[in-house]
Amino acid sequence: MRILVLGGDGYLGWPTAMHFSRRGDDVFVVDNFTRRTGHIERGTDSLTPISPLMDRVAAWRQIAGRDITAEVVDITDFTRLRSLVKDFAPDTIVHYGEIPSAPYSMIDRDHAWETQRNNVEGTLNLLFAMHEVAPDAHLVKLGTMGEYGTPNIDIEEGYLDIDHNGRTDRLPFPKLPGSFYHLSKVHDSHNIHFACRVWGLRATDLNQGVVYGLHTDETELDDRLLTRFDYDEVFGTALNRFCVQSVIGHPITVYGSGSQQRGFLNIRDTLQCVELASRAPAAAGEMRVFNQFTEAFSVMELASEVCSAANSLGYNARIEHCVNPRVELEDHYYNPTHTGLLQLGLKPRLLSEELIETMLHTVERFKDRVSLRAIAPATQWR
Amino acid sequence: MRILVLGGDGYLGWPTAMHFSRRGDDVFVVDNFTRRTGHIERGTDSLTPISPLMDRVAAWRQIAGRDITAEVVDITDFTRLRSLVKDFAPDTIVHYGEIPSAPYSMIDRDHAWETQRNNVEGTLNLLFAMHEVAPDAHLVKLGTMGEYGTPNIDIEEGYLDIDHNGRTDRLPFPKLPGSFYHLSKVHDSHNIHFACRVWGLRATDLNQGVVYGLHTDETELDDRLLTRFDYDEVFGTALNRFCVQSVIGHPITVYGSGSQQRGFLNIRDTLQCVELASRAPAAAGEMRVFNQFTEAFSVMELASEVCSAANSLGYNARIEHCVNPRVELEDHYYNPTHTGLLQLGLKPRLLSEELIETMLHTVERFKDRVSLRAIAPATQWR
Repeated sequence: MRILVLGGDGYLGWPTAMHFSRRGDDVFVVDNFTRRTGHIERGTDSLTPISPLMDRVAAWRQIAGRDITAEVVDITDFTRLRSLVKDFAPDTIVHYGEIPSAPYSMIDRDHAWETQRNNVEGTLNLLFAMHEVAPDAHLVKLGTMGEYGTPNIDIEEGYLDIDHNGRTDRLPFPKLPGSFYHLSKVHDSHNIHFACRVWGLRATDLNQGVVYGLHTDETELDDRLLTRFDYDEVFGTALNRFCVQSVIGHPITVYGSGSQQRGFLNIRDTLQCVELASRAPAAAGEMRVFNQFTEAFSVMELASEVCSAANSLGYNARIEHCVNPRVELEDHYYNPTHTGLLQLGLKPRLLSEELIETMLHTVERFKDRVSLRAIAPATQWR
Repeated sequence: MRILVLGGDGYLGWPTAMHFSRRGDDVFVVDNFTRRTGHIERGTDSLTPISPLMDRVAAWRQIAGRDITAEVVDITDFTRLRSLVKDFAPDTIVHYGEIPSAPYSMIDRDHAWETQRNNVEGTLNLLFAMHEVAPDAHLVKLGTMGEYGTPNIDIEEGYLDIDHNGRTDRLPFPKLPGSFYHLSKVHDSHNIHFACRVWGLRATDLNQGVVYGLHTDETELDDRLLTRFDYDEVFGTALNRFCVQSVIGHPITVYGSGSQQRGFLNIRDTLQCVELASRAPAAAGEMRVFNQFTEAFSVMELASEVCSAANSLGYNARIEHCVNPRVELEDHYYNPTHTGLLQLGLKPRLLSEELIETMLHTVERFKDRVSLRAIAPATQWR
């Protein structure tokens, strides 16, 4: 397959590029370094030292003997995106090329609009480029479980069969996104759905849970192939932050009661899911939706797992609750369906103490790079 | 009340401004002349000759003895919008300030993005401005019935009580918008809903049908107070186009079978609805949704009404079907609820042959201004 990876320098994009490349696919990576520059703006960084994209590509060539093409392109530049899609003629476009941070989008008006503009404009450009020059390509778009929020009913995969006043229809599942970032993904989903209905494009919308883990079969091959590990309050995720806090002797900070539940998955399962979706494309005119996570946990459960794994390694970890900077339900029903990818063949790799220990070892290795200032929640929803 | 009217130079905005001003409210009008410049770009114009905004305001002062403040502001300029909202301190913000054309948004990528950017950024700016400097103001936002599309179930007003696997919740009504313009309104609705939930803002989302009619009690007072009448394929609506075609001896062009059904209302009822919503604001934290139309018709029914009214006035009108440039269901179920505004006190003024005759008389008066080139459908959905 010819695979275009948008956001191919990112936490998931770079491992995805190597994953396909190793399997013999022809991979073209595009990025505009939004995450790297976002960290510069905030004076923070990935815990793992990551190589520049062009060094990653060179190291990959040396180690795997495979070429990955990489180009620095901002996909909100329609002219460049369109000609790139036309020239490369991808079978599959894996689209990670968005700003994926809820706190970032809640900093102020400028960050909210930057997030929505960047994400919605980039995806809209992609839809027009596909319509004009690659109408048979398959868009594999990363959405988020956060599009659904926490309704009081079972969450289905993208659509809901509704029976109302004696009539029925299958309609898009109603969304209750919890930040301007999550809203940008809802906007994307509506735009993509329309493009599939009206232009006959093919798309798979992967509503992904929170991804954890540092290593894939490819990142492990060489330090120059490492992917990023963000633990700061803006770009990091809870599990990462908990691991860093445990290692440096800072209390594990749980926002509010910690009874908020979310879906989670291992980075290796992200690669499995994206590959499964790519090898079995959506039909023309179809926006297929999968909920991409393998287990649901409460934040408190996660914190306890990290705390106990850390203590068994001899750290002195403990949990501390802090005022929740977000506006979100803490006690809520949560039962999202996630059978579609299992039916396609996903073999989940569930969260284990061993995985957390591996993460803690990596944090230990790079703990001199930790910035305490980056951890405390500074962005308020209200 | 202190009322800020965004898009106050437009078809509905200007009559709305006069309507409130005449009732003693303090009206501040903002516009960036998007519609006037859109016509310049396309070489088309309103059938009615409309005065420049500043002349309208001067004529209103002379005729009604009331001041309307007007300022040329692009609401995508957050700094200006915020300071304006802060200084004027409105009780109510009536928001018509969007690009409201489905065909315009379907011309190409640039027009699609211009529509979504303008509409979503403007509304997002307004939400941030309200949050920061006018948290108790009431946003009266014009949405569109086109957000819902034509699902196979009854359309409720904004929300749907869902019973699913034995659990229930009241969730946003699923949307199937039919153009990038309609999508922009869906994006707005999600952003507004979020701002109400998280910041406690008050908003009323008026999902309006297609508005017809030229005159209100205020526009009739003087030709300098006339509102616009668009009949071209990009900014015009079907009823207007049918009237113009009948008067100039052009066949009435129905897209496809004409069995597509839509909700309609008289411009005088728009003013009633906006006033009713403004005088009974939504609660803090509430995004209240009303479906703002009074009758549903098929396009064919409208065409027949115009045809018969025209023929009774001595014109030689006839109906001709042309290939539908849009991608839309022609035979579909359509039963949207619209009781909320009736409960607030709306007294509908239904479509009558007399109203159509009045429109035909106005077209006759200005028929030398008709551009034939403007009528034919040029914008294709595919």
